[in-house]
Amino acid sequence: MTCREAWFEQVLDHFSWRNDSRWQQRYYVCQETEQQLANPAATIFFYCGNEGNVEMYIRNTGLMFENAKSFSAMLIFAEHRYYGKSLPFGNDFSAASLRYLSHEQALADYAVLLDDFKRKHKMVRAKVIAFGGSYGGMLSAWFRMKYPHIVEGAVAASAPVLSFHSSDKGPWRSEKYWEIVTRDASGAAGSDERCVPLVRQSWPIIDSMGASESGRESLAALFRLCEPLASPGEVNDLKLFIAMAFDTMAMGNYPFPSDYLTGGIGKLPPWPVREACKLLSSCGDCKAENLLDSLCSAISLLYNASGDQACLHLPEDSSYAGIWDFQWCTEMLPQETYFKRDGKRDMFFPFSISSKEIDQHCKSKYGVIPRRGWIEQLYGGLEGIKRASNIIFSNGEFDPWAAGGVNVSEVKDAAARGVEAVWIEEGAHHLDLFFSHPADPPSVKKARQMEVACISKWLHWKEPKEPSKQRMGAVPISQDD
Amino acid sequence: MTCREAWFEQVLDHFSWRNDSRWQQRYYVCQETEQQLANPAATIFFYCGNEGNVEMYIRNTGLMFENAKSFSAMLIFAEHRYYGKSLPFGNDFSAASLRYLSHEQALADYAVLLDDFKRKHKMVRAKVIAFGGSYGGMLSAWFRMKYPHIVEGAVAASAPVLSFHSSDKGPWRSEKYWEIVTRDASGAAGSDERCVPLVRQSWPIIDSMGASESGRESLAALFRLCEPLASPGEVNDLKLFIAMAFDTMAMGNYPFPSDYLTGGIGKLPPWPVREACKLLSSCGDCKAENLLDSLCSAISLLYNASGDQACLHLPEDSSYAGIWDFQWCTEMLPQETYFKRDGKRDMFFPFSISSKEIDQHCKSKYGVIPRRGWIEQLYGGLEGIKRASNIIFSNGEFDPWAAGGVNVSEVKDAAARGVEAVWIEEGAHHLDLFFSHPADPPSVKKARQMEVACISKWLHWKEPKEPSKQRMGAVPISQDD
Repeated sequence: MTCREAWFEQVLDHFSWRNDSRWQQRYYVCQETEQQLANPAATIFFYCGNEGNVEMYIRNTGLMFENAKSFSAMLIFAEHRYYGKSLPFGNDFSAASLRYLSHEQALADYAVLLDDFKRKHKMVRAKVIAFGGSYGGMLSAWFRMKYPHIVEGAVAASAPVLSFHSSDKGPWRSEKYWEIVTRDASGAAGSDERCVPLVRQSWPIIDSMGASESGRESLAALFRLCEPLASPGEVNDLKLFIAMAFDTMAMGNYPFPSDYLTGGIGKLPPWPVREACKLLSSCGDCKAENLLDSLCSAISLLYNASGDQACLHLPEDSSYAGIWDFQWCTEMLPQETYFKRDGKRDMFFPFSISSKEIDQHCKSKYGVIPRRGWIEQLYGGLEGIKRASNIIFSNGEFDPWAAGGVNVSEVKDAAARGVEAVWIEEGAHHLDLFFSHPADPPSVKKARQMEVACISKWLHWKEPKEPSKQRMGAVPISQDD
Repeated sequence: MTCREAWFEQVLDHFSWRNDSRWQQRYYVCQETEQQLANPAATIFFYCGNEGNVEMYIRNTGLMFENAKSFSAMLIFAEHRYYGKSLPFGNDFSAASLRYLSHEQALADYAVLLDDFKRKHKMVRAKVIAFGGSYGGMLSAWFRMKYPHIVEGAVAASAPVLSFHSSDKGPWRSEKYWEIVTRDASGAAGSDERCVPLVRQSWPIIDSMGASESGRESLAALFRLCEPLASPGEVNDLKLFIAMAFDTMAMGNYPFPSDYLTGGIGKLPPWPVREACKLLSSCGDCKAENLLDSLCSAISLLYNASGDQACLHLPEDSSYAGIWDFQWCTEMLPQETYFKRDGKRDMFFPFSISSKEIDQHCKSKYGVIPRRGWIEQLYGGLEGIKRASNIIFSNGEFDPWAAGGVNVSEVKDAAARGVEAVWIEEGAHHLDLFFSHPADPPSVKKARQMEVACISKWLHWKEPKEPSKQRMGAVPISQDD
């Protein structure tokens, strides 16, 4: 299958008319043969691009590629506005320029892009299945919920669609996120039993050293930081930097080497949290300096995945979110740096932020204040999901985002509507979307089978009657209902 | 039942965050007893206000009042932004101020208003049924389609949801609208057989007289105009004025006297088109002057419904649409003054307007250009409606808006999903929504029964088990699923 880059002149503001600006949206079309474009009954697998360069999703969404042929499907990967090369205002990410960044605008982009694509290629009857992982999975589910005439069904992998206040479930417990990160580092998830206690032991040591200038010098040296730690505030940045390493490795806690969570620069080893915990637990007497030195080795698995970093940089963006922080500051799309920690049920240090502080942050950074109830008003929380149709949600045992996902038990009554959920033991962040790998646990194979079965059902797919007469690579005509 | 006016501080722009302005939205709450507010299981009948003062819908939507008691329902009538007293920018209707006028914003208003209302009154589990007629019916159907977690079902009366280009039905034939107006004036609809030919005869006479200054003076006198006809262009305004009278009387072609289409100033007689045709047909020799004099009497049924107009004013707004023209100029919500006429299949004079002319008009008047495909991209045309659930569409034989409505045969396969349609013989514009009247044709009684049956089904309504123990006016607890 080959993928080609394409561009679409997209509406800037779908929900207002005074500004009729357009911008160039990037997408990729992948197909086996050129014939699929001419095939009015082809299937389209559509990836709902999330907050990154769309090429990353092309490289990693094996589920779409591996099942394209059996559904005679062509693939479209759409890039989300303001990310990758789909930049309505170029590299201007000022608050004023971000005003058209919202998931509603992104979904409308996808609707308009698909509608135009299908008309242009004379395939208006082609059926579309939406795919997405993480925020892309939220988009995938929401795309089906709001545009059911455009997508037959949606695969929503590791999509934290319930990480919001909900009338039926009450306020979301964001603490659960960091508890899952912690669990990944525990014996229950196959990590060294000493790991969680050792991480916990490190915070008071860091705090104590961070209180003095000489202590901060030692800390900077122990953690091989490129810049000195100028203040106790920067020591807090270091602590978050460490916590975020465990967070990222928990998301990326896959059974095979992967560069998905390193942004493509170097690979994490298989089961990176277990590996990090092994490094941490090799701390000898595990007194102050040895402990922190081992902790540095542990987080360097991620931060020096490329192996060529002479020293580590603390990020300047303390939200770790880039412009995603705008999406948090508006619709409160989830960003774990804002989630609660108590240091008891999780292995980190206590953290909480009040609504007022969030408002102040968002107001001063972007001139906006979040509308907290909006996502629930728009989608109806769990109740809304149960009334939707043709969506399969997947969540992984090792993935902290499972904290905001749809549980199997929560939608068991909605199976007749095609709303299903699958739990992936030993699965990290949307493992099911990746290319198959010999190290895959049986759970993810089963999840993928369920997803494919759902797609078959949604498409009313029947195998072509005489497959022996099909040329290799030719496109059988799909059976319509 | 008593209704009280209430106000809600509403979000100005639901789809953007840079502007966090609020405005005061008006709504009315009608209930039998105050107890309903405290009843967590009460039903809410919600009227989706359309392009007018909401009090008009309260006065005329008898269907909601007459069925409130049997469903233990309280009523909410929400006023649409920019209409009535719900004015985000007061009386400033400049193009810049209208930028937040769209049906998506209005639906989001209704979602947020209802969510807030239910929380405030501790009735978050109350089930909501949406009602609406005409544009309000479109809103009602679309509300169910986009916010199914908020409304259990929708009564969409005379809602021209298919008056748009549609992938499955092709371009909409707007001519059909004026053909139905014409049919109302024909023997098939009970009007004098001479009516349609006489209307047709009048146009060349008006054109011929309108070509000269003395002819225009005679025309102004014959039609009792308050101002002279200064130019042939104004003669065209007169012709449209006449056509619009037949249009409005066709919409208001009810079997009883009604002030719904006169804006409350004076009443149209029962079957006003028949009455107008009778007046027109009493033209004696029906030569030029007698014909036009009778035509003036016919249209005066509407334009002098109050009986106190010494002369008639041609409207200054040639679109007959007010700020609705902005909704046409953006989302192309239907406005019949732009619909085609050929003068052959209808009794009027040929008219058509190109996309380019519409664009020019909209650009110069509002600085906007319509996005023609948008409504279909958003709702999916007929295909989208068939995939929706719990909506009953009604259309009337005498109502020109039936041209863009959902036909019974079109959704017969969607009945299992609760999507139904009913055809009202001898019904004009959403007759079914009005208070019952002794002159109601059997068809509308049947339509109302169907609507009530749908609501029962959507609410899983069961009659209270021991009605004899209920105090009169007390509120039985609804049975949940």
